[in-house]
Amino acid sequence: MAGFQTISLSDAELGAAGSTMLQLMEELYPLCRSITGPGVRDTLHRVSRLAPLTLTEVPTGTPVFDWTVPREWSVTEAYLEHESGRRFAEFRRHNLHVVGYSVPVDATMPLEALRERLHTLPDHPDWIPFRSSYYREDWGFCLSERERLSMPDGHYRAVIRSRLHDGSLTLGEFVHRGRSDEEVLVFAHTCHPSLCNDNLSGIVVAAQLAAFLRERDTRYTYRFVFAPATIGSIAWMALNESRLENIRHGLVLAMLGDAGPLHYHRSRSGRATIDRAAAVVLRACYPDAGAIDFSPWGFDERQFNTPGIKLPVGRLNRALTGEYPQEHTSADSLELMSAGALAESWRACLRIFEVLEGDRRYLNLSPKGEPQLGRRGLYRQTGGYYDGVADRQMGLLWLLNQSDGEASLLDIAERSGIEFGLLAQCARDLESAGLLAPAPDPRS
Amino acid sequence: MAGFQTISLSDAELGAAGSTMLQLMEELYPLCRSITGPGVRDTLHRVSRLAPLTLTEVPTGTPVFDWTVPREWSVTEAYLEHESGRRFAEFRRHNLHVVGYSVPVDATMPLEALRERLHTLPDHPDWIPFRSSYYREDWGFCLSERERLSMPDGHYRAVIRSRLHDGSLTLGEFVHRGRSDEEVLVFAHTCHPSLCNDNLSGIVVAAQLAAFLRERDTRYTYRFVFAPATIGSIAWMALNESRLENIRHGLVLAMLGDAGPLHYHRSRSGRATIDRAAAVVLRACYPDAGAIDFSPWGFDERQFNTPGIKLPVGRLNRALTGEYPQEHTSADSLELMSAGALAESWRACLRIFEVLEGDRRYLNLSPKGEPQLGRRGLYRQTGGYYDGVADRQMGLLWLLNQSDGEASLLDIAERSGIEFGLLAQCARDLESAGLLAPAPDPRS
Amino acid sequence: MAGFQTISLSDAELGAAGSTMLQLMEELYPLCRSITGPGVRDTLHRVSRLAPLTLTEVPTGTPVFDWTVPREWSVTEAYLEHESGRRFAEFRRHNLHVVGYSVPVDATMPLEALRERLHTLPDHPDWIPFRSSYYREDWGFCLSERERLSMPDGHYRAVIRSRLHDGSLTLGEFVHRGRSDEEVLVFAHTCHPSLCNDNLSGIVVAAQLAAFLRERDTRYTYRFVFAPATIGSIAWMALNESRLENIRHGLVLAMLGDAGPLHYHRSRSGRATIDRAAAVVLRACYPDAGAIDFSPWGFDERQFNTPGIKLPVGRLNRALTGEYPQEHTSADSLELMSAGALAESWRACLRIFEVLEGDRRYLNLSPKGEPQLGRRGLYRQTGGYYDGVADRQMGLLWLLNQSDGEASLLDIAERSGIEFGLLAQCARDLESAGLLAPAPDPRS
Repeated sequence: MAGFQTISLSDAELGAAGSTMLQLMEELYPLCRSITGPGVRDTLHRVSRLAPLTLTEVPTGTPVFDWTVPREWSVTEAYLEHESGRRFAEFRRHNLHVVGYSVPVDATMPLEALRERLHTLPDHPDWIPFRSSYYREDWGFCLSERERLSMPDGHYRAVIRSRLHDGSLTLGEFVHRGRSDEEVLVFAHTCHPSLCNDNLSGIVVAAQLAAFLRERDTRYTYRFVFAPATIGSIAWMALNESRLENIRHGLVLAMLGDAGPLHYHRSRSGRATIDRAAAVVLRACYPDAGAIDFSPWGFDERQFNTPGIKLPVGRLNRALTGEYPQEHTSADSLELMSAGALAESWRACLRIFEVLEGDRRYLNLSPKGEPQLGRRGLYRQTGGYYDGVADRQMGLLWLLNQSDGEASLLDIAERSGIEFGLLAQCARDLESAGLLAPAPDPRS
Repeated sequence: MAGFQTISLSDAELGAAGSTMLQLMEELYPLCRSITGPGVRDTLHRVSRLAPLTLTEVPTGTPVFDWTVPREWSVTEAYLEHESGRRFAEFRRHNLHVVGYSVPVDATMPLEALRERLHTLPDHPDWIPFRSSYYREDWGFCLSERERLSMPDGHYRAVIRSRLHDGSLTLGEFVHRGRSDEEVLVFAHTCHPSLCNDNLSGIVVAAQLAAFLRERDTRYTYRFVFAPATIGSIAWMALNESRLENIRHGLVLAMLGDAGPLHYHRSRSGRATIDRAAAVVLRACYPDAGAIDFSPWGFDERQFNTPGIKLPVGRLNRALTGEYPQEHTSADSLELMSAGALAESWRACLRIFEVLEGDRRYLNLSPKGEPQLGRRGLYRQTGGYYDGVADRQMGLLWLLNQSDGEASLLDIAERSGIEFGLLAQCARDLESAGLLAPAPDPRS
Repeated sequence: MAGFQTISLSDAELGAAGSTMLQLMEELYPLCRSITGPGVRDTLHRVSRLAPLTLTEVPTGTPVFDWTVPREWSVTEAYLEHESGRRFAEFRRHNLHVVGYSVPVDATMPLEALRERLHTLPDHPDWIPFRSSYYREDWGFCLSERERLSMPDGHYRAVIRSRLHDGSLTLGEFVHRGRSDEEVLVFAHTCHPSLCNDNLSGIVVAAQLAAFLRERDTRYTYRFVFAPATIGSIAWMALNESRLENIRHGLVLAMLGDAGPLHYHRSRSGRATIDRAAAVVLRACYPDAGAIDFSPWGFDERQFNTPGIKLPVGRLNRALTGEYPQEHTSADSLELMSAGALAESWRACLRIFEVLEGDRRYLNLSPKGEPQLGRRGLYRQTGGYYDGVADRQMGLLWLLNQSDGEASLLDIAERSGIEFGLLAQCARDLESAGLLAPAPDPRS
């Protein structure tokens, strides 16, 4: 197996990856996921077509750090039926209509008594909100403001055919073995029903990364974890605590299918290698991207960055929470997703992995003055397989200037602003020309 | 005695403090202060109503570091009398009319001969300037440009009934004992005659702080020093040199009664705890405030920050020297002062002290993943005594995330931007819930 | 011999220096320089009138680090003659007309066959480009686009009477001995024919600096090196490798005669003393100046900053490469140069040297509180030989405040923004007043 070079990825490969991801997302969209239950299992089985997942079932009641795995929830039918027989908020039309983890109910009551159980978004009268009540027994319905206003006075029968029982919480895992036991963790949360950006997008990008890497020779071992948010990442850490020490870098994937620019959320220290790797990739390849300091109000990187765990895990996404009004509503739908955005998100992850894979230190073997590149065919070489001749020229010069055995490729990419993949190629060329050699490991 | 929490200060307490300070300022305004003399003594006696000061008289001729305490000065009458009998620049109308430390004089001369002794502000024709000549024997009069222009030609009798004699320089001090011998120094200069912002405002805010703290249980001992600028702070340091080593933090108070935003002047290092404490308070509570690097062209923090003393002393004020044209003129009068500005300045000081008092390190007792706040009633708790539920939620999450025994509350306030008082309350709540415990002192 | 103080440089001295440099540039302009050959030798001989250079001839074939000294090149005549007898691109009219290092040729061919040998600048139709082919055997002509368009069809005789033979590469050196063996290196490249800013300007400024310093007592030894770009600096380093360890600071001079603001290019570390010295000079004296991070795409500082040499060498210039379209064309001519710009560039270098010369640490001998400057005649002294009384006052206060034996004058200049020359004068005044004393060397 060969490694991978993102500068060699063709438009066709990118296009194929995008199509695969979008098709998988379309297939997963209708499933009713929650933090437990058959929708999650079905989702993970379908993801296994891209990369075969190992599923772990964590029984209800299992203590996981400060938490306890809750009962398993499933729902088969839910609706509100007016005395006229007209039905509203039908679960079979959209699985957001029922509040997640609603207890079973079959009761008749006047509209007024029902009102506090109805959740709408008056500012977005056509959108259905997503609501859940995982840790408090409750029930309710979500519907568009427009549908709610159309409900006539009178009595309604509220029916939720759900089940809460001792079952299990389902975790999915795929491991690609690299040459080293050191691991890169990739995490995507799986607990949201028919919501696309948050987080079918993270699921399909993670799956496609796994599919790509499993056929490559890599330095790191890559561990992909698919689990519900919060309780899932906590359960996975609790069950795998002894393995955590192998994790060197981590990335949470979410909100990666919309049309907005990429955003990277830094880990707790803000200076971890994953943070620096993401920074050089975004700077060189995505000029409109942003980077945001760690905040404990985030996705599952919150859990990995707690003081008793302290894993250097960042997060990549496009739309920012708070600036994406569709989040947690029925408007977070397939219309806002594109194969192109998913593919570019996928490539951005590969570029970040490429930095982790390829970071190393070199020694300039001709360090007194610049070596004469011209007689080696390395000076202002026109044509060839590079688009950016000028960037390549600068890459060669920066590598020679900085390679004193202390600066790594990542350091040089940070300082020069040159794309890491191009810089790594320049380093291989200089190594072939006998001008660079791997530096001895400073730790040995 | 209980401690204090600025988030619990009521509008009524704030209003009462402002009124007390403004009334004291009105009472002190007419007194003729200088670097020595009866005006300073009278001022300190009246301040003692709020907090009983210990007065120290330092005799004329006493060497204090590189300086010598000068002769004591007092003045009872001063005027310019035209041959027509009309009087100008009468001391009894405004004590700025006589140049500070003027030697006695009773001489008649033509207007032309007098001219170089007359100080005015042509750009502000209604304002009387403040001038003094402490260390060179001289005399003169200050008056408005308008009054000067109204002086008819002819001879004038210049009368200054002043006295320069071996006496003493007066220092006032109030000490509130805390649980520790470690001290916070608060300094206000007392040498200016009828000038309000510079520095009756600093005097009354310091006095009101002393009045407030003396009824509280505090960690630090608070030492309030009232003394003339430069010679006073130098004399106080020279007389108390052995005590200086107990001072951990210091604050010079001046220019605190005007309508402008607060400004903090950093100590020499710029990174002292007092600098960081002031920064988090201004950032969280006073968005229009500014912070300014140390300069040796300042108030008495210049003296405390000299290389042979090196105390971490900053300065809080509102109007900036150079941007407040009224400074050192009769226009620095009661009209520009308000009880509200004084009260808010006073609260800002208390907030800074609260950081000094409350800074400590905690250990998260449930550090693996986030603890389940919901079952402890700490998650999205609505209602209650807080205005900012969202801020409180973030405060809890930041504390849990950062409390690894190394980051202190001040560190966490810096990183999160959350008001220190709220953060300290969140820490107490988490401690009550058994989720945080005080971290062992890293020094022991 | 006395040292030098740039605050004492008179307008007359500045004017005389500017005139001398401009006249020398006018004299050097017509000479046909290249990386080797008689034009360089002639140039160095004429420079010797200002400071007597030691010339070193490095024979063709000498290995210098990774390079080999090439054959020597000279040219006496070159032109293109149309079958009508009309001549174009005549070398005797402008020495840019022949491509540098062209091999001899005397051949007749149709215009079409000649076309690939003709270099023009279509965007600047009146300018002749500068081209060379040092390390690949070739020949060609450079001419204005306008001249090329005027060439009639038909056959042309192309004549280049050049010589490529085993000879030598010429280095020029002037050393001014200081009190210490520690050296400041000043480098100017000499390889360009009739091009003014790049780099007759660097040559004449370096020469005038040498002429000035040779009559001064200095702390450092100043070594001026005049050599062709790249191969010249590499050859000089290879021949003087054992001496390089004495070099403490270095400056490459180029592009110093145009009307634009000064720019300093930092050394590889970006924090070398020369970088900091240049920064305080530009900040205090040249508010429109800029500073630019090190890049391996530069002038000869590239060679000095390679990892096997690692000398802290920066570069001073005015116009920036890429923002000066005249660079490497006939438009880089005497019209764009001025005595005033050259003189100010020269003074900027002296100011930088003054920082290197004068940087030292002092101890405040009256460090407790401020000393009483008034009784020593140092407080608000008006008149005198300073323009900026306020700056001087601030200089005295900053020096007293910072002089704890750790901060150096350069540190204090950085922090205060006060011109270094003025600060050094203040330090001498405080030393005379017994308030400062040299601090013990922290290394001893």
